[in-house]
Amino acid sequence: MAKNFNTLKALLTPEAQEKVAQMAEQMLQEMPLLELRQARGLSQKMMADALNIQQPAVAKIEKRTDMYLSTLRNHIQAMGGELEIVARFPEGSVKIQNFSDL
Amino acid sequence: MAKNFNTLKALLTPEAQEKVAQMAEQMLQEMPLLELRQARGLSQKMMADALNIQQPAVAKIEKRTDMYLSTLRNHIQAMGGELEIVARFPEGSVKIQNFSDL
Repeated sequence: MAKNFNTLKALLTPEAQEKVAQMAEQMLQEMPLLELRQARGLSQKMMADALNIQQPAVAKIEKRTDMYLSTLRNHIQAMGGELEIVARFPEGSVKIQNFSDL
Repeated sequence: MAKNFNTLKALLTPEAQEKVAQMAEQMLQEMPLLELRQARGLSQKMMADALNIQQPAVAKIEKRTDMYLSTLRNHIQAMGGELEIVARFPEGSVKIQNFSDL
């Protein structure tokens, strides 16, 4: 599958690759942290244990509308995921690299 | 094009939609904030003016490996883009919604 993917990618112009990327982004499900945790089958208690914090702190994080990228990354990693930061422009999207080593 | 896209999407199973999304994500270019600014044809001075801060503050932000989501969002908006927060899991990717109203 990885090989097929690279073959496919090689056949596409950069413009076509970008169009595919843009279309796919619109397909992504969107949800708040609390719903994402529930969709992952995790309780606040399980998150608290994984993050080595207290349960009310997990509840607080889920309600926040702003936080450090490192906090969010830890939170998503505790759910078994990886944080990805994307800047979308009319001409295309770019992953921001600064935060790979948090 | 939007109509064609919706027709295409309707034909795909959720699993197929997810596969397309995953493949497209791997196609995204990846770069640090400084390179992204240069790629957008912007100087630190222009960013400073747009953000109503001093030029050294722009340089500092570009070197940071951690920051508040709101800081990053302002920075990307000053470049004419939109910040998108994605959590990637082996089973699929999800946009995080908490931060839409920063």
